[in-house]
Amino acid sequence: MRLATVRDGSKDGRLIVVSPDGLRFAPAPVNTLQAALEQWVEVEPVLLALKVFPEQLELHSLASPLPRAWQWLDGSAFQSHGDLMCQVLGIDPIETTIPLMYQGVSDKFYGPHDDVKFPDEALGIDFEGEFGVIVDAVPMGTTAKDAMQHIKLVVQINDWSLRALAGPEMKTGFGWVQAKPPCAMAPFAVTPDELGESWRNGRVCLDLAVEWNGAPFGRANGEPMGHGFHELVAHAARTRDLVAGTVVGSGTVSNENFREVGSSCIAERRGIEVIDLGEAKTNFMAFGDKVRMEALDADGRAVFGVIDQQVVRG
Amino acid sequence: MRLATVRDGSKDGRLIVVSPDGLRFAPAPVNTLQAALEQWVEVEPVLLALKVFPEQLELHSLASPLPRAWQWLDGSAFQSHGDLMCQVLGIDPIETTIPLMYQGVSDKFYGPHDDVKFPDEALGIDFEGEFGVIVDAVPMGTTAKDAMQHIKLVVQINDWSLRALAGPEMKTGFGWVQAKPPCAMAPFAVTPDELGESWRNGRVCLDLAVEWNGAPFGRANGEPMGHGFHELVAHAARTRDLVAGTVVGSGTVSNENFREVGSSCIAERRGIEVIDLGEAKTNFMAFGDKVRMEALDADGRAVFGVIDQQVVRG
Repeated sequence: MRLATVRDGSKDGRLIVVSPDGLRFAPAPVNTLQAALEQWVEVEPVLLALKVFPEQLELHSLASPLPRAWQWLDGSAFQSHGDLMCQVLGIDPIETTIPLMYQGVSDKFYGPHDDVKFPDEALGIDFEGEFGVIVDAVPMGTTAKDAMQHIKLVVQINDWSLRALAGPEMKTGFGWVQAKPPCAMAPFAVTPDELGESWRNGRVCLDLAVEWNGAPFGRANGEPMGHGFHELVAHAARTRDLVAGTVVGSGTVSNENFREVGSSCIAERRGIEVIDLGEAKTNFMAFGDKVRMEALDADGRAVFGVIDQQVVRG
Repeated sequence: MRLATVRDGSKDGRLIVVSPDGLRFAPAPVNTLQAALEQWVEVEPVLLALKVFPEQLELHSLASPLPRAWQWLDGSAFQSHGDLMCQVLGIDPIETTIPLMYQGVSDKFYGPHDDVKFPDEALGIDFEGEFGVIVDAVPMGTTAKDAMQHIKLVVQINDWSLRALAGPEMKTGFGWVQAKPPCAMAPFAVTPDELGESWRNGRVCLDLAVEWNGAPFGRANGEPMGHGFHELVAHAARTRDLVAGTVVGSGTVSNENFREVGSSCIAERRGIEVIDLGEAKTNFMAFGDKVRMEALDADGRAVFGVIDQQVVRG
């Protein structure tokens, strides 16, 4: 099942169920995705029972499937990304066996086609292609095994980042505020079964195809996460209850063979250039630049739909 | 004006206006504090016009004035606190001229008398007495000067912390997730004018009296913040719009003469012991322990009311 949210002038939009062919939709009997997640056990069968899709889907009218969330916890579960980021930010490798995670701004997730405003190109504007999950209420102390059952939806995310601010904030130990403005989500939040065999061990084992200004930039696969999403959820829930609708991210999708498959963010490419050439050659984004991201299954279907955004002067 | 929230079974509770003597209240014409903050310019005069307080206030029935918020950004604006924390966490002093700030969990703020559940005493359970402000919508790029006008309410906060987890998380650079479970708020959110001359330069210039298990523990003053709240708000808004109802915290209230006035958290006392005695002697909290916090004005009035909480096994 694939869910989406139509803009209707309200802050949370209007929840819809998308037809299997992705062309039509039915309004959900529950108004918002947040409300659905708060009563998922009762609501899911009602959504699944919808078999008639009377309305035509206008992709450009879609908001983020969850236009705002009470909590967004982003991991950094791909080791090759972490290694390159330490290289490019000029910091020592992070020595830890626990998942890396920070809490980011969640009162707004951009829709998949929304322009993104930033005050200054000099801030080092970068995209980050990620996968994420949305949970129902997870009690404090839930184990990773039990956390798997709380993963109700899988999403695709563009975690906008401002690299010139990232290193200094990280060095304080406090994590990122200025370097991490709101993210965007691809149009469809999908139940794990929608991924078929590509949902394995709490990982989205799909290629994430990223294009920057129309040119292929990366096609890393989501499989090699050092910790699965169920482990990230359990990590987050160790000392707090997770409210229904909490979004947990994978961090930038990255593979060890990054020279072959490319990257899901510009900073990684710059890290590779530092290693290979002694200095970074690729600039960050300029106003007017576009980024496109889609996760493709074996049939070439964009399971989560497409993120296609432009950076503009704010 | 002092505002509070009565529990009514809903997630956001029921907004009330408290009488000047703190003994009675009137239901607000807007149901929730979040809704009031989203239309503050229209709502504030209506709240101020309420002069009849028909109902008796039961302090123990009060929730946090804002039971949940879309965003909680906590600073660390007291230099003496930062210095002691580096000492006790075994990390190098943080070299930065920008405000220190992390984003914490905000889908729940404990009420002032709520028990607080933790899974294990070994996590290093600690309180942190703070002040905070609540803003209306702050556009990205707002200057510190303009930010002052967006500070609509001032609050008093207990930022619960788990110290055994804090150092390792901080060393990753990602900030705190596990070390920072939900905070509590004192019962009254007050307009800045309610503080009179004690609201100066974006600072709450009041003593914060902290008692641990009935014994005086600290009485530091809120004046010596290295950055005022207006500067913290501007810092937070540099690259994001702040949604109405965003809460910004001062970090633990701390004074340079900590040996005279005491501390607002146990970790600081332990830091002083490390300096003076070579090792920390004071243990963190045990299940059953209580902490009480109130900010006293020149007349000995607890402006924000009292936080009085007990730690229990979760």
